[in-house]
Amino acid sequence: MSRTVYVNGEYLPEEKATVSIFDRSFLMADGVYEVTSVLGGKLIDFAGHAKRLERSLNELEMQKPDAFDDLLDIHRELVRLNDIDEGMIYLQVSRGSAGDRDFAYPSADVKPTLVLFTQNKPGLADSPKALEGFKVISIDDQRWGRRDIKTTQLLYPSMGKMMAKAAGCDDAWMIEDGHVTEGTSNNAYIVKGNTIITRHLGTEILHGITRAAVLRFAKEAQMKIEERSFTIEEAQGADEAFITSASTFVMPVVEIDGAAVGAGTPGPIAARLREIYLEESRKVAI
Amino acid sequence: MSRTVYVNGEYLPEEKATVSIFDRSFLMADGVYEVTSVLGGKLIDFAGHAKRLERSLNELEMQKPDAFDDLLDIHRELVRLNDIDEGMIYLQVSRGSAGDRDFAYPSADVKPTLVLFTQNKPGLADSPKALEGFKVISIDDQRWGRRDIKTTQLLYPSMGKMMAKAAGCDDAWMIEDGHVTEGTSNNAYIVKGNTIITRHLGTEILHGITRAAVLRFAKEAQMKIEERSFTIEEAQGADEAFITSASTFVMPVVEIDGAAVGAGTPGPIAARLREIYLEESRKVAI
Repeated sequence: MSRTVYVNGEYLPEEKATVSIFDRSFLMADGVYEVTSVLGGKLIDFAGHAKRLERSLNELEMQKPDAFDDLLDIHRELVRLNDIDEGMIYLQVSRGSAGDRDFAYPSADVKPTLVLFTQNKPGLADSPKALEGFKVISIDDQRWGRRDIKTTQLLYPSMGKMMAKAAGCDDAWMIEDGHVTEGTSNNAYIVKGNTIITRHLGTEILHGITRAAVLRFAKEAQMKIEERSFTIEEAQGADEAFITSASTFVMPVVEIDGAAVGAGTPGPIAARLREIYLEESRKVAI
Repeated sequence: MSRTVYVNGEYLPEEKATVSIFDRSFLMADGVYEVTSVLGGKLIDFAGHAKRLERSLNELEMQKPDAFDDLLDIHRELVRLNDIDEGMIYLQVSRGSAGDRDFAYPSADVKPTLVLFTQNKPGLADSPKALEGFKVISIDDQRWGRRDIKTTQLLYPSMGKMMAKAAGCDDAWMIEDGHVTEGTSNNAYIVKGNTIITRHLGTEILHGITRAAVLRFAKEAQMKIEERSFTIEEAQGADEAFITSASTFVMPVVEIDGAAVGAGTPGPIAARLREIYLEESRKVAI
């Protein structure tokens, strides 16, 4: 069955969903995006994603799409039209098409392009992978400098996933100046005793919506948080490791560059945080 | 009059030229491009651009489009259909659309997207700007690490052009580790006496097709070449400065961060190189 997607005010069958070849996201990666999870047919942390989208737009001096204030309704309509119980909603805002190619931003009358589509993922919350854990490799962080802006410049993260795949692993952690920045599409954490260590916010990493929620829940559960950078060696020697993202929630990491983390199986803190995150998020899902 | 553009085997009016919202260039900047100049209705250094395109595709393990061997014909047909005497032809290869979004590359049966369009620029070779020269500002180089691959990850160069515009200038030179890498869409040079200094090739800069030709012509004209990095201070104190690119050819730079370079007017070596480049390129244009 064909999905119904949203493009600039219209709900369309996915096969008919197109953008101009002059769209700036196509020609020069001039676009930002968000991915919101759906559990039980409801949106997880929609407000957080909408707020970060607004920040990304502001940082790039990109106009808000006209439908910005209707985004919640559009998300819900896509969930309804595509009968999504568990899955994701992808949203992208591009600076639009001025009908030609130019490095300079187009004039204000050129409206941004707004695209949304669903990804149906039954069993997302009960992923068997969460019981098994991710294996990761480390790779150089070759991305641009403003990773705090959620742009579509995802070629290197995509290359990183392929490098991980080639190594028989699930993901790659990126290294800059000897320290882990983050995973290819997730934030990275290690656990030592009762302390959760994750890189401090800055331009080097995405300010994860799931990261913020998980750290809040961890504090409420009396865990200690250290926001600082760490090396691969420190991670390999940690008791546990895990990642967070909107679509993996909290996912244990059991192996880094071939070395087992802790017992080489998902640790109790990651498992507990996943449980809390899913439970609390479902409660306030909209 | 509407342009005729090329999309995956079809010649179409530009208004009808679209790609899927699932195209990987749109969603994750997974695309590479080339820009070839047209002078007198003929292509400048087509072979160089085709060769670099092939290199970009190889570096990213991207399939060649089926029409790869017909690219010269397609370029010529677009020149003919759009009656281009002076201008550019833009070409982009995207990894294509697998009908959904995934960081992992699609399977081999997903064909790359091939898009080409013309930009009509009467007077390109006789640009009055070449008599006036460019003013540039310096900005931090925040791009990803593989600038030798000509990808569509052009958001930062685009931001750089806007920063230059805001400062009343024409372009920005990017600085990494204290040294100039290149301009936002061109290679950067300074001149001291009879010596032309330009950054050595590496992953930090694009391997300009125009750069290679200009250096060859400079050698033939008995000029000395030093391929090494230089600072903004050294550039400000040089006798001349200039840039090269497929669409600006050789363009003098007369001001850097508000400081005049040499006499603050286009220098004789840049002017001579522009003349030689245009003359020699026209001779072998196809």
